[in-house]
Amino acid sequence: MDTYGYAAHSADTPLAPFHFKRRSLRPDDVAVEILYCGVCHTDLHMARNDWGVSQYPLVPGHEIVGRVVDAGVNVSRHRAGDIVAIGTFVDSCGTCAPCQRGDETMCKKGVLLTYNGLDPSSGEMTRGGYSKHIVARDRNVLQVPKALDPSRTGPLLCAGTTMYTPLEVWNTGPGMRVAIAGLGGLGHLGVKFAAALGAEVTVITRSAAKAEEASALGAHHTLVSTDAAAMARHESAFDLIVDTIPVAHDLRAYVTLLDHDGTLVNVGAISMPVEVDMLPLVVGRRRIAGAGAGGNRPTQEMLAFCAEKNVLPETELIGMESIAEAFDRLERGDVRYRFVLDVGAFKLP
Amino acid sequence: MDTYGYAAHSADTPLAPFHFKRRSLRPDDVAVEILYCGVCHTDLHMARNDWGVSQYPLVPGHEIVGRVVDAGVNVSRHRAGDIVAIGTFVDSCGTCAPCQRGDETMCKKGVLLTYNGLDPSSGEMTRGGYSKHIVARDRNVLQVPKALDPSRTGPLLCAGTTMYTPLEVWNTGPGMRVAIAGLGGLGHLGVKFAAALGAEVTVITRSAAKAEEASALGAHHTLVSTDAAAMARHESAFDLIVDTIPVAHDLRAYVTLLDHDGTLVNVGAISMPVEVDMLPLVVGRRRIAGAGAGGNRPTQEMLAFCAEKNVLPETELIGMESIAEAFDRLERGDVRYRFVLDVGAFKLP
Repeated sequence: MDTYGYAAHSADTPLAPFHFKRRSLRPDDVAVEILYCGVCHTDLHMARNDWGVSQYPLVPGHEIVGRVVDAGVNVSRHRAGDIVAIGTFVDSCGTCAPCQRGDETMCKKGVLLTYNGLDPSSGEMTRGGYSKHIVARDRNVLQVPKALDPSRTGPLLCAGTTMYTPLEVWNTGPGMRVAIAGLGGLGHLGVKFAAALGAEVTVITRSAAKAEEASALGAHHTLVSTDAAAMARHESAFDLIVDTIPVAHDLRAYVTLLDHDGTLVNVGAISMPVEVDMLPLVVGRRRIAGAGAGGNRPTQEMLAFCAEKNVLPETELIGMESIAEAFDRLERGDVRYRFVLDVGAFKLP
Repeated sequence: MDTYGYAAHSADTPLAPFHFKRRSLRPDDVAVEILYCGVCHTDLHMARNDWGVSQYPLVPGHEIVGRVVDAGVNVSRHRAGDIVAIGTFVDSCGTCAPCQRGDETMCKKGVLLTYNGLDPSSGEMTRGGYSKHIVARDRNVLQVPKALDPSRTGPLLCAGTTMYTPLEVWNTGPGMRVAIAGLGGLGHLGVKFAAALGAEVTVITRSAAKAEEASALGAHHTLVSTDAAAMARHESAFDLIVDTIPVAHDLRAYVTLLDHDGTLVNVGAISMPVEVDMLPLVVGRRRIAGAGAGGNRPTQEMLAFCAEKNVLPETELIGMESIAEAFDRLERGDVRYRFVLDVGAFKLP
């Protein structure tokens, strides 16, 4: 299938229009006409080869929402016309214990990433959602509930599942004191989810000015991390802290905010070192963990939860031709809270 | 009540005989004639003021087993003649949520340690089990099941609960792959407990020579931490690692041994810094935690478990007059696996 989109052609040039082919349908494939694609900070890192693994031309995008236009002969879970979503991966072994449980992001053989992943079946690099079409194995394509606005659903597929999965794994619910550190693309969804799950939610932020935003998103409290007295008052105040701060920072100040048996889960600065003292962990049986995007089970569950609770990310819909500007604004933190590309409206002349 | 025992009188002199008084019975107190007291590495640290908090004269000992000789008017849970045990603490607020759950070591107001703790009710420092008698509040005195040999039970009260509690908290049971790092006083009990709980147990040790000991204690496998190839083969091999290594060490090599959602619990080198990379935590949703001795609920539960499963520490019974030699041997790691003082046989002229 011929298609086109935007690709990075090198680490230091802006994304530019790019024509390429999607594979012919296999029996268990679905072909999707992409309508919307969220813009994740990972896209920026990968376009610029910040992690040294990018291969060009690179088509970013792993927060994909679209309409099924064709399905292989063995496909029963999707039909032409369905609104569906594809997240951070397009394949996995399907047979290991994590895959069998729907935790494909922990596949023992490694997942095939939605873009810049080497597809063992074709020998080619995968290409993402900054494009008009995608073809993927049916089981890694999720159904979007009718109640969800497709133009705002994309960010749930990476930012959303990255926040929802740890909240689910660590049993967030009524009576739990949950803090979300950082109020960006991830954090704002964390606040919405944790509040909708019934927890008592505190936003931890450097900026007292964010208290109003935090409250509007559903947070019950704001704790300003630069206020030493306030931080001291909140010692042992939380059962779970999900730390979305995207840059390296000292975890010590956050660990002591945990009550006994509490967990600090880092989902933001994933390449930062962990440097803390063991004693506060021992004394309070506190835990430090990391987490990433969830597999199909928690992600599909999150979509149902969002439909039921009317939870959607706050988004700014932009045209494909604005991607360079969006990357610049993303880098400056100038977005409330997530860009979505209007792929459906995009036409190359 | 007049009593006597052995006390450290300064950081650099050997323990010496010491006469002192125990408080008169309060309505909810029990008086215990001490028969046995385990020797914990903490005793050595505290006698020598390694942590800078020791007050002299200091009577160590928090692995106490003895016989009730008197009970206050409100005491119903113990009677004269009962064989009972006292562990690392002798009091706590009793009203906070952790206390109400029997997790007194996490008391919101802090536990009163069995020795070198400032007793707010008397203004005096508590004194431990290297002595003929002790008086303690009834609820912090545990019943020793009749099936347990009292001369070997003492080490369960600190080493035992420190190993049993994390195994219980992290749901050790059949199907779980548990590794115990380090095979000393703590580790050897960890192996016995984890095996008795039905887990598949691996000992991680620097010394291949310990494989036979490990097997005799119930371990199914031994992994030699200095064997890089073996360590690489065990990547993602464990659901839980309880790390009892008593000196600072690099945790990085242990983190990657965890399977996804696995936890590394440190109970040994509690003052060491944690310095690891976040990425392996994020990718595998792995966790790092600390833990210490458990409260009355898990400790009493452990005693019942030990009685049912016939689990006891391997001990060497020594006379009180041998404590200096025992401290020396403890420091060299020359004990299989725990000294117990024969307090009952001790008489000052």
